[in-house]
Amino acid sequence: MATLVAPIKTSPVEDAEALQKALKGWGTDEKTVIAILGHRNVYQRQQIRKSYEEIFQEDLIKRLESELSGDFERAVYRWMLEPADRNAVLANVAIKSGSKGYHVIVEIACVLSPEEVLAVRRAYHNRYNRSLEEDVATNTTGHLRQLLVGLVTSFRYGGDEINARLAKSEADILHESVKEKKGNHEEAIRILTTRSKTQLMATFNCYRDDHGTSITKVLRNAIKKIGTDEDAITRVVVSRAEKDLKHIKEVYYKRNSVHLEDAVAMEISGDYKKFILTLMGKQD
Amino acid sequence: MATLVAPIKTSPVEDAEALQKALKGWGTDEKTVIAILGHRNVYQRQQIRKSYEEIFQEDLIKRLESELSGDFERAVYRWMLEPADRNAVLANVAIKSGSKGYHVIVEIACVLSPEEVLAVRRAYHNRYNRSLEEDVATNTTGHLRQLLVGLVTSFRYGGDEINARLAKSEADILHESVKEKKGNHEEAIRILTTRSKTQLMATFNCYRDDHGTSITKVLRNAIKKIGTDEDAITRVVVSRAEKDLKHIKEVYYKRNSVHLEDAVAMEISGDYKKFILTLMGKQD
Repeated sequence: MATLVAPIKTSPVEDAEALQKALKGWGTDEKTVIAILGHRNVYQRQQIRKSYEEIFQEDLIKRLESELSGDFERAVYRWMLEPADRNAVLANVAIKSGSKGYHVIVEIACVLSPEEVLAVRRAYHNRYNRSLEEDVATNTTGHLRQLLVGLVTSFRYGGDEINARLAKSEADILHESVKEKKGNHEEAIRILTTRSKTQLMATFNCYRDDHGTSITKVLRNAIKKIGTDEDAITRVVVSRAEKDLKHIKEVYYKRNSVHLEDAVAMEISGDYKKFILTLMGKQD
Repeated sequence: MATLVAPIKTSPVEDAEALQKALKGWGTDEKTVIAILGHRNVYQRQQIRKSYEEIFQEDLIKRLESELSGDFERAVYRWMLEPADRNAVLANVAIKSGSKGYHVIVEIACVLSPEEVLAVRRAYHNRYNRSLEEDVATNTTGHLRQLLVGLVTSFRYGGDEINARLAKSEADILHESVKEKKGNHEEAIRILTTRSKTQLMATFNCYRDDHGTSITKVLRNAIKKIGTDEDAITRVVVSRAEKDLKHIKEVYYKRNSVHLEDAVAMEISGDYKKFILTLMGKQD
């Protein structure tokens, strides 16, 4: 379930005109920008962009970029893009930021459905005139390259069948690979990058049952904790506000007994904060 | 240009009835099977299959499989499938046949357009409940796995831009990789599996200019010559008869001063030969 609150009927022309007024001249009326764009769904936002272009012969996204700044600018910019195009931008920024960006590439490749990943790869072609895997491969080496390229190029089977014997044998392979510090990880990479999500869940369950610890726990211990990261907040809120952020909020509350909005609100400020909380469903 | 000769107007119902008559009872009227199916385009063949199913409550492809045999059966079976589904079958057979099938996987991944390769991957899901890369990866290891999985999962950029400096530096990387007998081939695999076809052509031209020999010549010497192979004839004729087989015939004649039909005709026989030559445009 979404957290975005958007009226069913809106006028793209009126929205475009109100935005132009808010953005023109000295100073910017950020409140109006948030009040409008923070309450429009992806279709409505594309319509506004189209109307704005027709009326003012100017790209709304470019205008927003020149009038806004910092985390607020980045959040609004990402919010204005269509999902596949947005993920192409996020992936490109992640590739250019080196090891700090690897988890973003993993997130895009693993959280999206196989068809959504394909849409991101198409959007990447259109925007950068190169393929996503080409840029990932050029900027990595060795096993890391094999893993990341494997994840972004995979078109996993989406069915629900489980092969229990395979789950057991591949749980053992993963356990061997995790145990060996400088071992050959190619089989582990093959499993993680090609098996269906349902099959992998079965494999991870076998791992836990047969080896007394969960693979996610093993992996979590291996990843160093990162501090607050505005880009991550923007990425998750902007990507999920129209999708399943309500569900994420519920899970977060059950685990932490703190509301996700409150946790986020403590870390950020200004117009950026107002915009992010609007997308999280906070009533004005 | 296609070699297939198909009338513009046909009746799927009449075709289905004529085929049923040709296939029923003892013995099979192969001549009628060739006369009909050898002169119908992909859309017309699907319509015949549909009509046959409606009238006789039986799958035409299954009936053809049970009435025909050998190379003729395989050629007709492959001809009846839609292109993406056919390539999924060809890829699966190739994977199961081990090292003899690697060149078929390379052919499918490299000759088809990026969008066509995606269609084959979708068809593979539907037919086998697994992903193409999953099966390729399970049946290979090491650099061969990296190369073949990279080729089938790649979604290359399709634009015409060339980066000349990159072509030069990557030609050098390929040259190093070919020279080193047991060297690290990961960079060569990265280049061959991710760069756009246009960029690769530029890289191969640099290779020839800078290193005095063409990479295709180097590769050709490395591949051991295979004798006549009915599966290869079927694969090429069935896959290209509706596409560009006329062009292939012209190129073949220019290079060899022998007509491709004549060369093929010398190697094969029987109904299989009649069917293949019909698809190659031979007038009855």
